[in-house]
Amino acid sequence: MSDALTTRLTERFGLTAPIVSAPMAMASGGRLAAAVSRAGGLGLIGGGYCDRDWIAAQFAEAGDASVGCGFITWALAAHEAETPGLFDAVLARKPAAVFLSFGDLSPFAARARAAGVPVMAQVQTVQGAIEAMQAGGDVIIAQGSEAGGHGASRGTLSLVPEVVDAVAGRALVLAAGGIADGRGLAAALMLGADGVLVGTRFWASQEALVAPGFQRAAVAADGDATLRSSLPDIARGLDWPKPYTVRTLRNAWTDHWQSVPGGPATPEARAAYAKAVEAGDSVGAPGIAGEAVGLIDDVPPAAEIVARMVAQAQEGLGRW
Amino acid sequence: MSDALTTRLTERFGLTAPIVSAPMAMASGGRLAAAVSRAGGLGLIGGGYCDRDWIAAQFAEAGDASVGCGFITWALAAHEAETPGLFDAVLARKPAAVFLSFGDLSPFAARARAAGVPVMAQVQTVQGAIEAMQAGGDVIIAQGSEAGGHGASRGTLSLVPEVVDAVAGRALVLAAGGIADGRGLAAALMLGADGVLVGTRFWASQEALVAPGFQRAAVAADGDATLRSSLPDIARGLDWPKPYTVRTLRNAWTDHWQSVPGGPATPEARAAYAKAVEAGDSVGAPGIAGEAVGLIDDVPPAAEIVARMVAQAQEGLGRW
Repeated sequence: MSDALTTRLTERFGLTAPIVSAPMAMASGGRLAAAVSRAGGLGLIGGGYCDRDWIAAQFAEAGDASVGCGFITWALAAHEAETPGLFDAVLARKPAAVFLSFGDLSPFAARARAAGVPVMAQVQTVQGAIEAMQAGGDVIIAQGSEAGGHGASRGTLSLVPEVVDAVAGRALVLAAGGIADGRGLAAALMLGADGVLVGTRFWASQEALVAPGFQRAAVAADGDATLRSSLPDIARGLDWPKPYTVRTLRNAWTDHWQSVPGGPATPEARAAYAKAVEAGDSVGAPGIAGEAVGLIDDVPPAAEIVARMVAQAQEGLGRW
Repeated sequence: MSDALTTRLTERFGLTAPIVSAPMAMASGGRLAAAVSRAGGLGLIGGGYCDRDWIAAQFAEAGDASVGCGFITWALAAHEAETPGLFDAVLARKPAAVFLSFGDLSPFAARARAAGVPVMAQVQTVQGAIEAMQAGGDVIIAQGSEAGGHGASRGTLSLVPEVVDAVAGRALVLAAGGIADGRGLAAALMLGADGVLVGTRFWASQEALVAPGFQRAAVAADGDATLRSSLPDIARGLDWPKPYTVRTLRNAWTDHWQSVPGGPATPEARAAYAKAVEAGDSVGAPGIAGEAVGLIDDVPPAAEIVARMVAQAQEGLGRW
């Protein structure tokens, strides 16, 4: 280890910063992923619910930058069962990594490894970390409940070192959930992580495919102003398995629907939600962001986020 | 800053380790508090629900060690309204600090400051931190949801730096929730905290007033095996205000009562719970411990916990 933030992650993937941008479904396009990779981190395209054309378009946007691609594992399994081919098509691109979260990664991890593509596996429990390592995960992402979007209940701060102990050097470990600045990055390194996965901070970047209205609401919010619920999944008609919930900002919409049994499940409620998302209306739909919104005050280019995080982490680590 | 873990906390309170033991109601007696203080940290007696005789006995147990005393603020307010005198009696002992959590600290903070006793104020939100600072808190403890016992929903990792920014040097800040080893301590310092408040790790120490049956169950558990609920409060007939819940281990008792509307509120259920607590029966009642149980493998003396945490934090910080 040296003054530079050199870790097993930077060495393994040829990075200059131990920072990976989260593959946020719809929000993490090729432009964001490429910007993060070109800034020395590793950018991931948010393959999410497996829209094959969208994914191809985002790889095209990324150009010659070395980026990876993430999937919601249960959605990928359902998609492959119905219309096989997407996963092989992504592997054929020789992405920097595939990222799998929320479901049984075993079949996909085996195929990725056979294709020589590193497997990043996001988990929310120590038990999940052990299973993901056994299934062939090269990099285990320990995701705490602070994270925006889908996740579960454990907090990042104790989950990360427990996962580090559980995998005991057999896989790399990244910390995810609540990390938006160099203090969080330095803390993650102290917890024994090899780097960080950063979502919300890049969600509020210029390259993210996020409507400015949602970004403005997140910049204005403090970290107390989020909640975990299933409301956006109900409004989108997405049948997410337990125990995953989705962290969003609180707003008038979440306040209202939390008190309505069954949630926004009517056609009218779903249409209104879709319209608000489309319009970037942060009152009619909540931004999908994590507790780290309280650490976010602007919407800079992704490269500036990487540079700031590295400089602040180095400053903090150097002080001791 | 130097190689030693010198912070504003150690300087202000004359410590050699930036570690404060949580004032866990009933569990943190004078013996534990004294052991932590004699090891270079700051030990706090768990005044909790204001049993005046118990608190006096614990101060006697602590002998000449410099210890502080913590209170559940809403319980202290209720107790003082009915039978005033306890808080003044504690202030008259010139404790190293009074610690206030879960309620409006304003009246008590003012009295403590008038008596020259430092005020530690535990909060669970950034808004709470601002209010606690304005009410006269000298040290703000940012407690994440990972913590054992009572708490709320925000995770430690993003709450701490946001609180550090919010109080902007006008108060010291400690991190609490999920910290059980030197990695967590070093991470907290990277987040900008002046030290840590440690509960569960000291709950599983030789000096804690915790039945060995509960400690054994916690040592055996991983960090996935806890939950936040109101079940123990229902079983004890304690009328805790919102939004506070209590983190315990999961066990057959929590599994059962989670599925029963109203919870363990019958006289029989309450009697059975009280009997199990009394007997140290970790099946009939859940241990009140946090997600950090996954980092805990033994029940050592408190002084050894302090020494280990400092050594491991120094090792981690020194590596960079």
